[in-house]
Amino acid sequence: MSTPSHWQLARRAERLEPSVIREIPTTTEKPGIISLAGGLPAPESFPAQAMRQACQRVLTDTPREALQYAASEGYGPLREWVAAQLGEQGLNAQSGQVLITTGSQQGLDLVGKVLIDAGSRVAVEAPTYLGALQAFAPYEPEFVAVDCDGQGPRAEALAAAAGARFLYLLPNFQNPSGRSMGAARRVEVAQAAARAGLPLVEDNPYGDLWFDAPPPPPISATAGEGGIYLGSFSKVLAPGLRLGYLVAPPALYPKLLQAKQAADLHTPGFNQRVAHEVIRNGFLDTHLPKVRARYKAQRDAMRDALDKHLPAGCRFNVPAGGMFFWVELPDCLDATALLPQAVDAGMAYVPGAPFYCSAPRANTLRLSFVTVAPPQIEQGVAALGRVLATALEGRP
Amino acid sequence: MSTPSHWQLARRAERLEPSVIREIPTTTEKPGIISLAGGLPAPESFPAQAMRQACQRVLTDTPREALQYAASEGYGPLREWVAAQLGEQGLNAQSGQVLITTGSQQGLDLVGKVLIDAGSRVAVEAPTYLGALQAFAPYEPEFVAVDCDGQGPRAEALAAAAGARFLYLLPNFQNPSGRSMGAARRVEVAQAAARAGLPLVEDNPYGDLWFDAPPPPPISATAGEGGIYLGSFSKVLAPGLRLGYLVAPPALYPKLLQAKQAADLHTPGFNQRVAHEVIRNGFLDTHLPKVRARYKAQRDAMRDALDKHLPAGCRFNVPAGGMFFWVELPDCLDATALLPQAVDAGMAYVPGAPFYCSAPRANTLRLSFVTVAPPQIEQGVAALGRVLATALEGRP
Repeated sequence: MSTPSHWQLARRAERLEPSVIREIPTTTEKPGIISLAGGLPAPESFPAQAMRQACQRVLTDTPREALQYAASEGYGPLREWVAAQLGEQGLNAQSGQVLITTGSQQGLDLVGKVLIDAGSRVAVEAPTYLGALQAFAPYEPEFVAVDCDGQGPRAEALAAAAGARFLYLLPNFQNPSGRSMGAARRVEVAQAAARAGLPLVEDNPYGDLWFDAPPPPPISATAGEGGIYLGSFSKVLAPGLRLGYLVAPPALYPKLLQAKQAADLHTPGFNQRVAHEVIRNGFLDTHLPKVRARYKAQRDAMRDALDKHLPAGCRFNVPAGGMFFWVELPDCLDATALLPQAVDAGMAYVPGAPFYCSAPRANTLRLSFVTVAPPQIEQGVAALGRVLATALEGRP
Repeated sequence: MSTPSHWQLARRAERLEPSVIREIPTTTEKPGIISLAGGLPAPESFPAQAMRQACQRVLTDTPREALQYAASEGYGPLREWVAAQLGEQGLNAQSGQVLITTGSQQGLDLVGKVLIDAGSRVAVEAPTYLGALQAFAPYEPEFVAVDCDGQGPRAEALAAAAGARFLYLLPNFQNPSGRSMGAARRVEVAQAAARAGLPLVEDNPYGDLWFDAPPPPPISATAGEGGIYLGSFSKVLAPGLRLGYLVAPPALYPKLLQAKQAADLHTPGFNQRVAHEVIRNGFLDTHLPKVRARYKAQRDAMRDALDKHLPAGCRFNVPAGGMFFWVELPDCLDATALLPQAVDAGMAYVPGAPFYCSAPRANTLRLSFVTVAPPQIEQGVAALGRVLATALEGRP
């Protein structure tokens, strides 16, 4: 018996959209296409050997605990590791403030669920992380773009966002722009936010991927009770584990924990124990320098390729860490419209427009330098350069 | 600088509550307490050895794929396995309709996110699974309890729920009541739901845990486009993997997928590949009969203990599978009020009241027979019997 369907969608479902980033692979993952689009960490950097050993250890020593239901807060020793690690980076947090999440994307969803009402304002950078816009959107906020410069939000611009539920920030090697907030800017922004009564949600998935010097302390360190901090193991271990965390002020933690319980009971205990087994004895002290060296070389290769192949009128800044270059094309070009030609020419990028909550800049695009090796980076950027040069031919 | 906090909670956050089930362990996990409260599968049933081998295989053969970002839909071969498995149970589904979720709890959250508006009606059984009430509640529905008997919802009662966004059902060995819907009842309810324009959300975490005969085909098999089906690997493999799935009609799948992307990008690819490696060659054909035999023996032990130790005036039905007995005490007793005395006597249960969306029956409680072995089951039930007998002393 096939019955007529009477499903009615929730209003918020209208705010759900396919992710341009997660859809692009389906159109560009053809043989021979060099994708500089996805934010995929270099698979060569995944600690497969250490993971194998850790899986054996966990499944031999504590199989029952690892495979049973577990606490919604997360695995105690991993929460302690996170708190200690953040302490070294200048953020004082008790392990009781740490909530392990199923990737930091889940942290964004929980923050939205607990803090956003339909019609409430949420302040974001311009551009900002697309995944955050997508996590927050179903809770029906009104996004407010905060005016930014090469370091991110301008402190003077925060007053205009007063009354927003929070300001969402990525201070380190921002996705998509690659830019970072300096130490002085962090203090200025934290102070301006406090004056404006604007809590901060700080997202730091890339902070460990610095090339020359570690970034300044998290801005949350200055925000006290007025800050939530989000972190991730996706870029330092592997994204396929889906392990992230958030650090919340004691006044908010219980509600975020209850939202976590409702969302998926807990993050896989097996993964938490395996990750902790991998990292607990200083593994990252030797692993991260290798990842940084790899990505720095790839960053350099992309910088050189951009210098060499982009036509006049294109601009980019050189990121001091992370995974992305942000390219501004001449105003007359539309990166979304040009993407099919780029794919025809053998490469892919992500157009910049979806990273804006409003007033998208059509002449921007994002390039990832971490997924493919320097020869392919050069080849991909060269193909992009040809597409742009052709598009500019005959224009004033 | 510690700043004053200006956090403002979303209205839906008021609907988030601590889970009585997940909080109980913190009060009852004392040495010597026999907990019949939690719905924890027997850890002896976890396939640790098969998991060890599967982890080695996956991390040796496909470490990069397993540890990289992956498709939000889930791992293709696992989706195909689910579709084939459901086909054998009478539910025709294409693998393209299968969405792998981070435990079936996440499936409930996604269903709520996509289908529930503030103030919209959602029909549930009385009692029903507490985790579903908690997943749906933050989307601010008005819950409607459908009148139930020993088989679950009465078909005649569905007209009263017309206009609800969906009817949430657990047809097999329901949590908490242990009851099941017979084949005829399924058809009657599906037909009555179709007449009332009421889509079905069917949750089946326990269906594989049958003791004497497999349950009838899923009710979704009769509901066609009007049904969503949720399943889980928590009870057949291990909950610590956090692997579940939903099967949605093509008209709803894209929105559920977008909600999934926004919630955590994807369920850990590593876990999906390990689980598939464990089960792909018929592992469950030998594993599940062992789990069923274990649980059936424990069900029998609890039935015998309840027969022997409960005072007159208590009622329970014998579940044909799953994990739970549901006990109705004499009307004069309040299971929530008696819990501290039970803990003092050395055992713990879950009071039944939180499983009702409205009009809670205070004289009910849930006992799990899967977590501890028969001698402890008898000991725990005996302690419960003494507490109840004492409470009844001197009452009419």
